[in-house]
Amino acid sequence: MRIGFIGLGNMGAPMAANLVKAGHQVTGFDTAAPMPAGVTPAASAAAAAAGAEVVITMLPNGAILRAVAAQVIPAMRPGAVLCDCSTVDVDSARAVAAEATAAGLGALDAPVSGGVGGAAAGTLTFMVGGTEAAFATVRPLFEAMGKKVVHCGASGAGQSAKICNNMILGVTMIATCEAFALADKLGLDRQKMFDVVSTSSGSSWSMTAYCPAPGVGPQSPADTGYRPGFAAELMLKDLRLSQQAAGAVDADTPMGELAARLYATFVEDEDGRGRDFSAMLPRFEKRHRG
Amino acid sequence: MRIGFIGLGNMGAPMAANLVKAGHQVTGFDTAAPMPAGVTPAASAAAAAAGAEVVITMLPNGAILRAVAAQVIPAMRPGAVLCDCSTVDVDSARAVAAEATAAGLGALDAPVSGGVGGAAAGTLTFMVGGTEAAFATVRPLFEAMGKKVVHCGASGAGQSAKICNNMILGVTMIATCEAFALADKLGLDRQKMFDVVSTSSGSSWSMTAYCPAPGVGPQSPADTGYRPGFAAELMLKDLRLSQQAAGAVDADTPMGELAARLYATFVEDEDGRGRDFSAMLPRFEKRHRG
Repeated sequence: MRIGFIGLGNMGAPMAANLVKAGHQVTGFDTAAPMPAGVTPAASAAAAAAGAEVVITMLPNGAILRAVAAQVIPAMRPGAVLCDCSTVDVDSARAVAAEATAAGLGALDAPVSGGVGGAAAGTLTFMVGGTEAAFATVRPLFEAMGKKVVHCGASGAGQSAKICNNMILGVTMIATCEAFALADKLGLDRQKMFDVVSTSSGSSWSMTAYCPAPGVGPQSPADTGYRPGFAAELMLKDLRLSQQAAGAVDADTPMGELAARLYATFVEDEDGRGRDFSAMLPRFEKRHRG
Repeated sequence: MRIGFIGLGNMGAPMAANLVKAGHQVTGFDTAAPMPAGVTPAASAAAAAAGAEVVITMLPNGAILRAVAAQVIPAMRPGAVLCDCSTVDVDSARAVAAEATAAGLGALDAPVSGGVGGAAAGTLTFMVGGTEAAFATVRPLFEAMGKKVVHCGASGAGQSAKICNNMILGVTMIATCEAFALADKLGLDRQKMFDVVSTSSGSSWSMTAYCPAPGVGPQSPADTGYRPGFAAELMLKDLRLSQQAAGAVDADTPMGELAARLYATFVEDEDGRGRDFSAMLPRFEKRHRG
């Protein structure tokens, strides 16, 4: 397939490389990042999009996505699909999809989970919103870049699923970390805490797959000094997107709101920036009741 | 084994019945509840404890445990073990264990999870604090009443493990419910939400084993009108115990604190009393952002 790929940063570059490896013709554009091997450079986003059957975007936020879409959509050929893999606000995802549809294009929002490691290994999960037809067109590309693809519904459903998942994740990680710190102060051994919780009703992915306590449970960023992994500032970004969406649809999300506040404090006022989001555990170790 | 069993309510009665079924001689006392079949009634707590090798208590709270222990400890024969299966505050658990130890007795705190259903089926989980010797004595009784036993450490470790687990559980259930309500308002199908989250990083026991959305995931109280299950007021009790413990050891537990506040509102000011703790989902469906 002929693919235009716009945004070749930490995530986009290995994703594009996996498309090249799968035999696709990839033309790329980025304002700053170098081209991965095998990707043909274009002089602009519009030029990268011009001949493509599918245009993939991997961009930092909704404002940049809207700006790029405004350049790209007029350049795309009729019937091509614009597939945004960025994590952005639901409103931007829906607005861009509506513009693409009005221009006679297919459109998907397809945010990923799995991080830079998953992008390099080709093991990302894609959560996809858009029509069946557009989904069917792009599916082989998702399968070249990831190992799991869920078609969640119409435009915006991919972004909705991602922010709902990550809102739960942020809350659950903080709860797991504060419970470990409480258990420490109560004199409960961390391995015993893991043994009980990981097999009981307090169990979660945060505990069983990504345990925030060093030396306990499976290998995780806690075992390498909380080097990300999934950086605290990216969790903060996703929590803020969840709160933006909750505000837009008048949903009450008190736990998500508190998680956003705690990660904001951690990243902006404490030492959280550049650390894994599970470094909430050493944070709580040092804290006292307010 | 000769067992004294004090507190034969909703939980104690089926637990005592399983001990009888396993061939033990059980003498029981309760201020109100009838004796289960096969349990010999005693005239007082002290009388139930007098000839026993192990005395099991299953009581509503720490104050009642302390009062019962004051009657029972002097009546017990030297070397017998006092095993409290109630969920109480860590301080009461440790105080009673210290009194029993001073009187030449063994002592365990062994709170359970699994509820009335688990008590009847003999599938409870026991989280146990106390000495190896006392644990070894009572272990066959745990195995007659449950299917999983974790020796968590010294006195108080069982209660500590239980409240840490249930603090995470309360937080995670609320987060899962508010995320479902947000997903609804964003137009994301609940089955898709379950498909994504249950296999992603937002996954937890609350989602995969006890999904709060009716008709989605495994059979749970949501499928029978939120009949407990695990009642909201019992979750509130455990969250308050976690906050009492956090206060006593100066631990910062902001998520646990918010969960306790939300369940208090649900049980005391709304329609939560008598409903399953997963009925937070219909609560959030009706709510607006504050």
